[in-house]
Amino acid sequence: MKGNDILRRERFEEAQDESTSAFLSSLDQDSRILEADIWVDKAHVIMLSKTGIIRTEDAAAMLPALDQIQKRLTGQPLSGDYEDVHVMLESEVIGKVGETVGGRLHTARSRNDEVATCVRVALREDLLQIMDGVLALQSTLLEMAREETDTILPGYTHLQHAQPSTLAHHLLAHVASLKRDAVRLMAAFKTTNRSPLGAGALSSTPYPIDAGLTARLLAFDGIAENSMDAVSSRDHVLESLAALSILGVTLSRLAEEIILWTSDEFDFASLGDAYASTSSIMPQKRNPDVAELARARMSSVLASLVAAVSICKDLPLSYNRDLQEANAQLWKATEIMRNTLRVLAGAVSSLTFHRDEMESAAKRGMIWATDLADLLVRSHDIPFRSAHSIVARVTRTVEDEAGPEDIRDALADAARKITGNALHLGLEEISAAMQLRLAIGSRKACGGPAPREVGRMIRKFQSGLAANRKWLATRRGRIASAKEELEALQSSIVG
Amino acid sequence: MKGNDILRRERFEEAQDESTSAFLSSLDQDSRILEADIWVDKAHVIMLSKTGIIRTEDAAAMLPALDQIQKRLTGQPLSGDYEDVHVMLESEVIGKVGETVGGRLHTARSRNDEVATCVRVALREDLLQIMDGVLALQSTLLEMAREETDTILPGYTHLQHAQPSTLAHHLLAHVASLKRDAVRLMAAFKTTNRSPLGAGALSSTPYPIDAGLTARLLAFDGIAENSMDAVSSRDHVLESLAALSILGVTLSRLAEEIILWTSDEFDFASLGDAYASTSSIMPQKRNPDVAELARARMSSVLASLVAAVSICKDLPLSYNRDLQEANAQLWKATEIMRNTLRVLAGAVSSLTFHRDEMESAAKRGMIWATDLADLLVRSHDIPFRSAHSIVARVTRTVEDEAGPEDIRDALADAARKITGNALHLGLEEISAAMQLRLAIGSRKACGGPAPREVGRMIRKFQSGLAANRKWLATRRGRIASAKEELEALQSSIVG
Amino acid sequence: MKGNDILRRERFEEAQDESTSAFLSSLDQDSRILEADIWVDKAHVIMLSKTGIIRTEDAAAMLPALDQIQKRLTGQPLSGDYEDVHVMLESEVIGKVGETVGGRLHTARSRNDEVATCVRVALREDLLQIMDGVLALQSTLLEMAREETDTILPGYTHLQHAQPSTLAHHLLAHVASLKRDAVRLMAAFKTTNRSPLGAGALSSTPYPIDAGLTARLLAFDGIAENSMDAVSSRDHVLESLAALSILGVTLSRLAEEIILWTSDEFDFASLGDAYASTSSIMPQKRNPDVAELARARMSSVLASLVAAVSICKDLPLSYNRDLQEANAQLWKATEIMRNTLRVLAGAVSSLTFHRDEMESAAKRGMIWATDLADLLVRSHDIPFRSAHSIVARVTRTVEDEAGPEDIRDALADAARKITGNALHLGLEEISAAMQLRLAIGSRKACGGPAPREVGRMIRKFQSGLAANRKWLATRRGRIASAKEELEALQSSIVG
Amino acid sequence: MKGNDILRRERFEEAQDESTSAFLSSLDQDSRILEADIWVDKAHVIMLSKTGIIRTEDAAAMLPALDQIQKRLTGQPLSGDYEDVHVMLESEVIGKVGETVGGRLHTARSRNDEVATCVRVALREDLLQIMDGVLALQSTLLEMAREETDTILPGYTHLQHAQPSTLAHHLLAHVASLKRDAVRLMAAFKTTNRSPLGAGALSSTPYPIDAGLTARLLAFDGIAENSMDAVSSRDHVLESLAALSILGVTLSRLAEEIILWTSDEFDFASLGDAYASTSSIMPQKRNPDVAELARARMSSVLASLVAAVSICKDLPLSYNRDLQEANAQLWKATEIMRNTLRVLAGAVSSLTFHRDEMESAAKRGMIWATDLADLLVRSHDIPFRSAHSIVARVTRTVEDEAGPEDIRDALADAARKITGNALHLGLEEISAAMQLRLAIGSRKACGGPAPREVGRMIRKFQSGLAANRKWLATRRGRIASAKEELEALQSSIVG
Repeated sequence: MKGNDILRRERFEEAQDESTSAFLSSLDQDSRILEADIWVDKAHVIMLSKTGIIRTEDAAAMLPALDQIQKRLTGQPLSGDYEDVHVMLESEVIGKVGETVGGRLHTARSRNDEVATCVRVALREDLLQIMDGVLALQSTLLEMAREETDTILPGYTHLQHAQPSTLAHHLLAHVASLKRDAVRLMAAFKTTNRSPLGAGALSSTPYPIDAGLTARLLAFDGIAENSMDAVSSRDHVLESLAALSILGVTLSRLAEEIILWTSDEFDFASLGDAYASTSSIMPQKRNPDVAELARARMSSVLASLVAAVSICKDLPLSYNRDLQEANAQLWKATEIMRNTLRVLAGAVSSLTFHRDEMESAAKRGMIWATDLADLLVRSHDIPFRSAHSIVARVTRTVEDEAGPEDIRDALADAARKITGNALHLGLEEISAAMQLRLAIGSRKACGGPAPREVGRMIRKFQSGLAANRKWLATRRGRIASAKEELEALQSSIVG
Repeated sequence: MKGNDILRRERFEEAQDESTSAFLSSLDQDSRILEADIWVDKAHVIMLSKTGIIRTEDAAAMLPALDQIQKRLTGQPLSGDYEDVHVMLESEVIGKVGETVGGRLHTARSRNDEVATCVRVALREDLLQIMDGVLALQSTLLEMAREETDTILPGYTHLQHAQPSTLAHHLLAHVASLKRDAVRLMAAFKTTNRSPLGAGALSSTPYPIDAGLTARLLAFDGIAENSMDAVSSRDHVLESLAALSILGVTLSRLAEEIILWTSDEFDFASLGDAYASTSSIMPQKRNPDVAELARARMSSVLASLVAAVSICKDLPLSYNRDLQEANAQLWKATEIMRNTLRVLAGAVSSLTFHRDEMESAAKRGMIWATDLADLLVRSHDIPFRSAHSIVARVTRTVEDEAGPEDIRDALADAARKITGNALHLGLEEISAAMQLRLAIGSRKACGGPAPREVGRMIRKFQSGLAANRKWLATRRGRIASAKEELEALQSSIVG
Repeated sequence: MKGNDILRRERFEEAQDESTSAFLSSLDQDSRILEADIWVDKAHVIMLSKTGIIRTEDAAAMLPALDQIQKRLTGQPLSGDYEDVHVMLESEVIGKVGETVGGRLHTARSRNDEVATCVRVALREDLLQIMDGVLALQSTLLEMAREETDTILPGYTHLQHAQPSTLAHHLLAHVASLKRDAVRLMAAFKTTNRSPLGAGALSSTPYPIDAGLTARLLAFDGIAENSMDAVSSRDHVLESLAALSILGVTLSRLAEEIILWTSDEFDFASLGDAYASTSSIMPQKRNPDVAELARARMSSVLASLVAAVSICKDLPLSYNRDLQEANAQLWKATEIMRNTLRVLAGAVSSLTFHRDEMESAAKRGMIWATDLADLLVRSHDIPFRSAHSIVARVTRTVEDEAGPEDIRDALADAARKITGNALHLGLEEISAAMQLRLAIGSRKACGGPAPREVGRMIRKFQSGLAANRKWLATRRGRIASAKEELEALQSSIVG
Repeated sequence: MKGNDILRRERFEEAQDESTSAFLSSLDQDSRILEADIWVDKAHVIMLSKTGIIRTEDAAAMLPALDQIQKRLTGQPLSGDYEDVHVMLESEVIGKVGETVGGRLHTARSRNDEVATCVRVALREDLLQIMDGVLALQSTLLEMAREETDTILPGYTHLQHAQPSTLAHHLLAHVASLKRDAVRLMAAFKTTNRSPLGAGALSSTPYPIDAGLTARLLAFDGIAENSMDAVSSRDHVLESLAALSILGVTLSRLAEEIILWTSDEFDFASLGDAYASTSSIMPQKRNPDVAELARARMSSVLASLVAAVSICKDLPLSYNRDLQEANAQLWKATEIMRNTLRVLAGAVSSLTFHRDEMESAAKRGMIWATDLADLLVRSHDIPFRSAHSIVARVTRTVEDEAGPEDIRDALADAARKITGNALHLGLEEISAAMQLRLAIGSRKACGGPAPREVGRMIRKFQSGLAANRKWLATRRGRIASAKEELEALQSSIVG
C-alpha cells in the first residue's frame, strides 16, 4: 500500500459520507496557505535535521520532495479526499519517499501549531500587499492634491454647503485617514509576525526542538509564547480584520464621494472610460459600478470581522475547529481588500475634475456666512454669538444671489432687531468677506485649506509616505533573507 | 432677556415639537463628556486671551463662571431644553456673565471641532481606566499562576482531553492574550490623543489661534492635522471599539471557562460567595451569573463596533450628525468594559480551585497517547506517522483504565497489524510515558507547561506588566501636569 | 424584620460589593417591563386563587397591594438594592402584606418564566406602537403621492439619471417596502404573543396551575409549549429585532434621500423649519440632522440584532443569565424605532418639493435614450441589442442639449457604422420619444410610473393600509378585553 | 463578427484592465442563478412571442438555443470575459442564432429586473431545500425523543443542575424552536415568491408585456408591484438571511450541546464514528469537529446578514450595483445552511446516549431542592418564599449525598432559625420529594417533562411536521406545473 493511501485510510477509515467530508474539508480555502505550508514544512524538516531529531538523510529526501510537490500544485485549485492541505502535503511526501522517511515529517509538531503558523505566514504577506495598496492610493491622492491646491470646492457638513475649501484640502483628508490606516496595518503585522511553531497540539513538545531556528527561517520576529495561547489565539486575525474594516470605512467614504461627484446633480468629476460602466438597457449611462462595489464590499469586510469575533468569543481553550471558519472569513476579507485598493486607486486616478462646476457650486448656499460673522467679531467687536444671530437673520432675509449692498442693509436691519444697536459696514469689507479665495487664504491654521498650508501638509504626507515605503521594503527584505538562509541550509543538507 | 434664553430661543425658535428635540438632543449621553467639555472650554478661553483674540478681562470673567458651572453640574444628569452640552455650557456662561462677554466663548471654533475634542479627551480617560483594569486582571491571573505551577489539569482541544497541562500554564494563556490587548489599547490611545481643536466647522479658522497651546493644555500629544479630517474622522473611535471587541473575546473566553469549570460536570472550581448568585426558585443553586453577563456583554461591545463602522462607512466628508450616534455606542461600550473588567477580576480572584478533581480528570481520556507515540518515535525509531497509527489502534482496543501491561500487549498487536513488524516495549518506559508529571516536565519548549518554563514565563509577564504600569503612570502624569499648567495660566489671567 | 428586608437579606447576604450588584442588576432596563410585570403578577395571583393553590383571602390582600405599588412606581426610574423588578415587586408586596401572605406570590412560578412573560407582554406593546408608526408613515407618503402623480423626476440607477419617472411613483416604492415591513411586524407579533407562564424554572411545575387562564388574562394567543423552550428561547426577540433591522433599511434609505434631495446640488426639496437644524457657527445652514440621526440609528438597530444573535447562539439550554443583555438590546432598539418613525414621518410631511427643479433635472442626462432605442425596436424592427448599440453610440457623439435633428443625424451615422444599414427616422417620432410625459405615460405595465397606473396602486395601497389598521384595532381590542376580564375577576376576589 | 463578439466588444470596448473586469464580474457567484436565468429567459421569450412583441419564428429559434446552452453549461463553473451570466447567455444565444434574432432577447426588460427575478427563483429553491433540512432534523429529533421519554437528565439553568428533566423533554425544546424556524422560512418564501419581471430598469416598460404570464410560467405567486421597488428592494433577501440567522441560533445551540455532552466531563453521549474526527497528533481523540464547524458557520450566516443590511441601508433608489455583493452573501449563507442541516442531522442521529451517566448526573447537585420547597408549601402551608429560604439554608448545611434523615434534621433546624417555628417532616414525604421519577411525573403542566405530557407534545409536533411537509410538497408541485406549462408552450411555439 502506498504511503498516502495509508494515511488517507487511517483518517477516513471511519465511514464518513461525502457530504460530511466536504463539510469538514478546508481544501477550498487552503490554496491560500499552500505556499506558506510548504515553506513551514521545509523549515521544520531542516530544524529536525539540525537538532538531530531526524536523520540528515531523511531530511535530504523530504526537502526535494517538497520542492517537487510545490511545483506541481502551485497555481492550481487543491483537490482530493484530504481533510486539509497539511494532510495532503504529508501524504504526498509519504507517497514520494515512503512512510519510513516521510512519516517523520510530523515529528514534534501538530496540525494545530502548523496551521497557526501557516495562517500567520500567509496573513503577513496579505498585510504587506494591502499596505502596498494603501501607499499607492495615498500616492495617487497626493499627486492629485498637488495639482488642485487652487481648485475651489464647497466644504460640506451634513452634505450642505458650509464653508469654502479646496479640492486639495479635501483629498488630503482622505490621505490623512489612510496614514492612520497604515499605522494600524503595521501594528497588525507586528502582532501577527510571531511564530507558534513548536507549540504542538497545545502543550509544546518533549522533543529538543529549536523553535528559534524555525522562527528565523520563516522570517518571524520571534516566538509566540505560551503554547496553549499559541494554538488557540486568533487575535492577530481579529486585529487584522479590524484594521481592514476601519480601512474599509476610509475607502467606502471615498467611494461614496466618487458616486456623488459623478452624479448629474453634483457633476464635479467624471470617471475614466475604463472605470465607467454602461447599462444593459440605458445606452447613455456611465455608471460608477466600481465605486458601488467597493462601497458594498467594505460591508463584507466588516461582516468577516463580525463572524470572526462571534466565532472566537465563546470558545474555551485551546484549539477548537471553529477557528477554521475564522480563517475562511479572513481570506475572503484580505482578497476583497487587495482587489478593492487596486481598482479604487485606478478609478481615482482616472477622475477628471470639473473645476468650474466645483467653484460655481461653492458660490451657492451663502457659504460666506461664517466669514461675515467673523468680520463682525473682528472688525466691529461684536461677540461671536451675537454676530452669529445677526448673520443668521440676514441669511433668512436675503436671496442666495444677494450682493454686498443687500447684505449691508440686511445686516443693519438685523443688528437693530437683535442687539438694538446700529451697525454700519463698508461695502469693501463685505465684498472681501464674500470672496472665496480670500476666505480660503485666511484659513491657514490647523491644516486648513489655505494653499500654503496645504502645500506644507503635502510635503509632510510625502515624507510619511516615504517612511512607510521604507518599512515595507525592510519587511520584504527580511523575508527574502530568511528564504535565502533556508535555501542555503537545504543545499547543505541535500548536498 | 437673559443670555441663555437668547441662545435657546435662537436655536429653537423654529417650532420643533418636543419629540423632535428629544430625538436630536445628546444631553443624555453628554454627561460622559461634561468634564472634558469644561476643560476644553477653559483651555480655549485661555488661548483666546493669550493670543489677544479676546480681551483678558473677558477671559477673567468666563473662567470662574466655568468653574462654578462645573461645580453645579458635576455628578448630575444633564437636563434642559438644550440640544447638547456645548450649547448648555455656552448658555450657562452667558447667563452668568452676559452675552457681551459670554458670547465670545465660541469665537474661533465650532461645535464640530469642540465635540471632536471632547470625545477624544473623554475616550482617552476611558482607555486609561480600561488599561488599568486589564493590568489588574493580568496581575490577578499571574498571582494565581504562581501558586498553581504544579496543579495538573487536562489540556483540551475540541473540549476533549488532549494532553496533560497545568493550571498555571492554562492561566498564562489568558495573561498572554491580555498582554496583546494592552498593546492594542495603547495604540488606540495614541491614535486618539491628538487635538482637533482649531479645525473649526471643517476648514479651520481665520483667527490667529494657537492650536499648540490648547493641545498642550489638554494633554494631547499633538494636533490632528487636516481640519476636514479632524472633524469628520472617527477612526480613533473605531480603533478603540475594535480593541475593546478583541479584548472582549479574551474576557468572554475566560468567562466561558468559569462557567464550564464551576459546572457540576467539570467541578474544577467554585466561585466565591460574593460572585455566585442564588435562584428565585431553586434554593440550592450557585449560579455564575457574573460570568454569563460578562460573556453576553462582550457581544454588546462587538455590536457597538458594528454600529459605529456601519454608521461611518457611507458618510461623505466632512462632519455629519450621524457621528453623534457613533459616540453613543462608544460610551456604552467603554462603560461595559470598565465594569466587566472590575467584576470579572473579582470573580476570578474569588475562585477556589479543586485540584484533585482537575488531576483526576487529567488521568482520564487516554491523555498519555501522544507521549506513547513519541516514545515509539524516540526510543524505537518508528516514524511519527506510523507510531501515531499504532497508538491510535491501541486506544481503540484498550479500556480507559488500562495498565502498562495491557498497553504493552496492545502495542505489540497493533504494530504487527500495521507495520508487520514486532514491537517490544518495557513496562518501565510505558509507565513513564503514562505519568502526567513526567510528561508535563518534559514539555519545556516554546512556553510549554513544564514548571520551570512556566516560572520563566511568569517572570517575563511580570516585567511586561511593570512596564505597562509605568506607561500608565506616565500618561496620567502628563494629564496632571497639563491641568496644573492650565490652573496656573487661569490664575495669572483671573488674578 | 420587615418582609422586603428578609428577602433582600437572603439574596444579598453573600457579601457582594456594590459594583457587582450594579453589574448584575437589571433595574435600569426593567422600567420597560414594570407595567407588564404587575399585570403578570395580578394574573398569576388570580389564577393561584381560582385554582385553590392559594387562599382567596391571600389573593384579596395581594391584589390591592399590587395596585398601590403600581401607582407609586409608574413613571419613575426604578431604584434600590434589588437585582431586578421581579424581586423588587415581591419585596414590596411582602412589605405591605407580610411574608405569610406575600411570600406566596412566587408559588408555582420562577423568575425564568416570569421574565419571559414580561418581555413578551412589553415587546408585544412595542410592536403594536411600531406598527402604528409604520402605518402613519405609509399614510403620509400615500397622501403625498396622490398630489405628485404628475411631478416628473429623474429615475435613478447607480445614482445616475436612468429613465424618467414621477415623484408619486418614487414615493410609492417606499410605501411598498413599508407594506412588507408591516407583514413582518405582524409575524413577529404572532411569534411573540404566546404565554410562557407556567414553565417555571425550566420544567414547568407540579402545582395544578391553569396556564390557559393566565394566558387569557394576559391577552396571549396561547401557551408557549415545552417548558424548557419557553424559558430559554428568545427567537421572538430575534425575529422582532430582525423585522426592525429590515424596517430600518427602508427608513434609512428614505433618510438618505431626504439628505440628498435637500442638498444644494439636488435641491429637490426643503425640510420644514421644525426639522431643519441650524449650525453653531454657520448661520446660513439648514441641516437635515433629523434624517442623519435616523440613518445612523438604524445602524444601531442592526447592532442590537447582532448583539442578540451573538448572545443567544452559543448558549446550551435552558435559561442563562446572558439573556438579560439580549433584553437590554431589545428595549434600546424598540425605543429607537418608535421615536424614529414618529420624527421621520414628521420630517417627510414637512417636505416642500421643488417640482421645477425635479423636472428640469429629468431633462438632463439623455434620459430619453431607452425610449429612443425602444423606438428603433418597435417602429423600425431593429433587434433591441442592435438598437442599444446604435443609441449608445449616439449618446457618445451628441451633446446633452441635442435636439431632434442632431439626434436624427447621429442615429443615421451610428446605424451605418454598426449595422451597415441606412436608418431614417422622422423628427416627430424622435421628438415624441424625447418627451418625458409621453415616455412616462407609456410605462403603465407592472407598477410603472404612468399616472393611471400610479393611481391604481395608490388605491390598492390604501386598502391594504385600511386592513392593517383593522388588524391593529383588533389586537388592541383583545388586550383591552383581557384587562377588563382581569379587573372583573379581581373585583370578585377582593370583593 | 459573431454575435457574442459584438456584445462583448460593446460592453468592454472601454479599456478595462483585467483586474477591473474581475472586480466587476459576478460570474463566480452566477453559477448559483444559471438555471434560474435560463428558465427566466425562456419564460420571457415565450411571453414576447405570445404578446406579439417578437415574431414566433424568432422565439422558435431562441428557445432551443437556450436549451442547448443549458445542457452545455450546467454543472460547470462559468468562465469567460463576461460581466455576468445575463450577458453571457445573451451572447451565447446571439452566437447561436445571430444578432438579428438573438438581439431581441432583451426586448422589454433590463438586467435590473432580470437579475432580481433570477435571485428570487434561486432563493426560493434554496429556501425549499433548507425547509426540507429543517423538517428532516425535526423528524430525527422527534424519533429520538420517542425513545427517550423515560431517560432522566439534569435540567440546567446557568449550566448548573436545576431540576430533573428527561432527554425527550430536552430534545423537544429544540423541536419547538425548529418549528418556529419553519414558520419564518415559509414567511420568507412568501415574501420572495413574487415576480419583478417587467419592472425593466426601474420604470417598467412601454411594451405591451404580459407580466402575469411570465409570473405564472416562473411559478410565482404574483407580481412585485411598483417597478422601482421591484428592482431596488432586497428585503426578501434580508428576511431570508434573518430567518437563517435565527435558525442558526437553534442549530448552534444544538451543536454546543453536542460538544458539551460528548466531552469527557459530561459524557452524556458519543458521536458515531462517521462524525467523530481523529487528531493529527493525539491518536486517542474523538473530536466533535462537525459540531464545532456547524457552530462557527452559524456566525458566518449572521455575518452575511450584517453585510447585506449594511450594504442596503444607505442606498438611494433604485438599483445600485452594491446589491450584487448582497447576493454573494446570500448564496454563501444558503449554501452553508443547506450543508449544515444535512450534516448536523446526521451527527445527531449518530449519537449514542449514555443513559446511566445522565441519570447519575441528575442525582447530583441537590436537584431535589425545589421539590422539597414545594413540599413545604403544599403539605405544610409554608409560604413559598419562606420555604425557599429554609431549603436554601438546608442546601448549605448538608452534603450532596445527604439522605432523608439528614435532610429532615436540617429542615427542622433551618425552620427554627428562619421562621422561629418548629417543622417536622416525615421521612416518606422527604424521600418522595427526592425521587427523580416522581418529581418528573408531577411536572405535567405547560409542556413539562412528565412522560405523558411529553408524549402528547410528540404527537402534536408530528402533526405539525406533517402539515409542513404538505406545504413543501404543494410548493414543489406548483413549480413542477409551471415548468410543464412552459414546456408545453415552448412545444407549441417551436413546433
